[in-house]
Amino acid sequence: MPDSRIPAAQVRRFIATAFERLGLPAGDAATVAQLMTEAEIQGSDGHGVIRLIPYARRIRAGGMNLQPNIRVTKEKAAMALVDGDNGMGHLVMKKAAAIAIAKAKQCGVAWVGSRLSNHAGPASLYARMCLEHDMVGMYFAVGNANHLPPWGGLDMLLSTNPIAVAVPAGEEPPVVLDMATTVAAYGKVKAKAQRGEQMPVGWMIDRQGQPLTDPKRAEEGFLMPIGGYKGYGLAMIVGLLAGTLNGAAMGSEVIDFNHDDTTTTNTGQAIVAIDPDAFGELDAFKARVDKLVRELRASERMPGVDRIWMPGEQSHAKKLVNEREGLALPAALRANLDAFARDLGIPLLEQS
Amino acid sequence: MPDSRIPAAQVRRFIATAFERLGLPAGDAATVAQLMTEAEIQGSDGHGVIRLIPYARRIRAGGMNLQPNIRVTKEKAAMALVDGDNGMGHLVMKKAAAIAIAKAKQCGVAWVGSRLSNHAGPASLYARMCLEHDMVGMYFAVGNANHLPPWGGLDMLLSTNPIAVAVPAGEEPPVVLDMATTVAAYGKVKAKAQRGEQMPVGWMIDRQGQPLTDPKRAEEGFLMPIGGYKGYGLAMIVGLLAGTLNGAAMGSEVIDFNHDDTTTTNTGQAIVAIDPDAFGELDAFKARVDKLVRELRASERMPGVDRIWMPGEQSHAKKLVNEREGLALPAALRANLDAFARDLGIPLLEQS
Repeated sequence: MPDSRIPAAQVRRFIATAFERLGLPAGDAATVAQLMTEAEIQGSDGHGVIRLIPYARRIRAGGMNLQPNIRVTKEKAAMALVDGDNGMGHLVMKKAAAIAIAKAKQCGVAWVGSRLSNHAGPASLYARMCLEHDMVGMYFAVGNANHLPPWGGLDMLLSTNPIAVAVPAGEEPPVVLDMATTVAAYGKVKAKAQRGEQMPVGWMIDRQGQPLTDPKRAEEGFLMPIGGYKGYGLAMIVGLLAGTLNGAAMGSEVIDFNHDDTTTTNTGQAIVAIDPDAFGELDAFKARVDKLVRELRASERMPGVDRIWMPGEQSHAKKLVNEREGLALPAALRANLDAFARDLGIPLLEQS
Repeated sequence: MPDSRIPAAQVRRFIATAFERLGLPAGDAATVAQLMTEAEIQGSDGHGVIRLIPYARRIRAGGMNLQPNIRVTKEKAAMALVDGDNGMGHLVMKKAAAIAIAKAKQCGVAWVGSRLSNHAGPASLYARMCLEHDMVGMYFAVGNANHLPPWGGLDMLLSTNPIAVAVPAGEEPPVVLDMATTVAAYGKVKAKAQRGEQMPVGWMIDRQGQPLTDPKRAEEGFLMPIGGYKGYGLAMIVGLLAGTLNGAAMGSEVIDFNHDDTTTTNTGQAIVAIDPDAFGELDAFKARVDKLVRELRASERMPGVDRIWMPGEQSHAKKLVNEREGLALPAALRANLDAFARDLGIPLLEQS
């Protein structure tokens, strides 16, 4: 079945209506819908519309606070700690980003952490918020399920804790890195299993430390951190900065939100805003970023390589297409959303 | 020949004497000697005493400023840009770290960048400076030689730009990550060649993108970034934050300091200090770090794994031994240092 494209505004209305029906105040429902649609637009489909149904499941189970008092509990000139009061992560981190940007305008740099937050979508969504203010944005988060043991270990105590950094350019698209600290995301493993394909060596290892290439045996092994022990170190450090520093969950405290809809996740995240204008002329900075992007892109290429991509450039290209032509949601997701809408008693997506 | 151990203080005196003879003011010579010896003590032997001879070569060639006016040229409450005036990187980054720590005490977090700096030793040396003030430290740097092409490319436009993060613990050693953004450092490749061994698949690729395992053919290929395109993205982002943001060298502007002793490197670095006390009670934070370290260490282990290490824990163990028993410098390095001392007209290391 071909994936028919749907205007982003229609998707946004559908999500907002769903959240209102689930009990979110209208303004909050609109904010979450806007950010989830934005995730879909930028090509982060694993963190976009597909999350509506699991979020709804948690809300219905009483696992998230629909009337949170999201507030700053600790503050200095260049930092704040935001208590999310177990509200939706999108609301918490949108507020955290706004605070970081305002403080960075004053101080040059600012760091805002969250606790008692929840899953907030793709990391780059919040790093990108700094771009609108001509700032560099960094984002760290503790993932909401542990998929990694410490290096050499067997107990899954770490998540694929992501890092995102967004850097404004001049005429070029912004440089936006958004990466988990594992070689492959777990979703890629599931896709290989569905297609009946083997995984490349390096994606997973089994409990003896040997390469695991059969995706049907994925539950017998672990995702490999990037660079082996280096990625283990990165996952731990990101968790210390986004979780432990903020008094949020880390290690064995992390709740697997795929299998537990009720326990407060106490998710921790951090956003850093850096104002390049404080370090020198903004336009000169942007021109230097453009120069770097262009010289990397113009590098001689390996045989068979058509193009050298910058981090975030493919996402940027998808965004332009999706904004122009609408969102191509897979038929299976459409069917699930239709069933969800009927269950909730709201208009179907195509009628939104 | 067995490596006889030498007290760290003796190594420090030797280095200080050498730098004074090379023309550094006595105070600066002592500072650089102290930091280079500290690098050696913490086990960063590739960035310790071994660097004395190449630093001296650059100084004698006129490639570094011996009387630099290291100064803040841009400043806001939580940031500063330090102009190193082409002085030794150790002097620049020691000053940058002190500024970051002082500003973080006021603002909770601070970020200090450098330009016109030089190679400063191991990344963790500066991140660790924050530990003495019960702060988290982060350090980024642009490496002083390009070893990586952009992903899919052939032109070496990126360095193995390192990241270090140091996190204070309570009773446990601090957690200190110090990593290049490549799977293996170039020094490891050279060591394999010297021992006549093959490299594992994954360290390097050739110009066709195929695994390169013969270290004698290393010049025909490139180091592999960790996680493939992810490590490429990380190397680029670190370079943007430590180089481009500060108006320092990045991409094609990077000078290969192995082959060029005279051109100003315009090295860029960045140090970030984060005060956990601003985010909550310091002691509670340290206790949470201890708890995490202990549960990761106590994980069930893979067959054949004796112990699960924390980032920086092996370096910490080496540091305790080296402080107690002195520094074990390889015989070949000792011989080179003796020849260097004779040439410079200073007492040999064993007489220092």
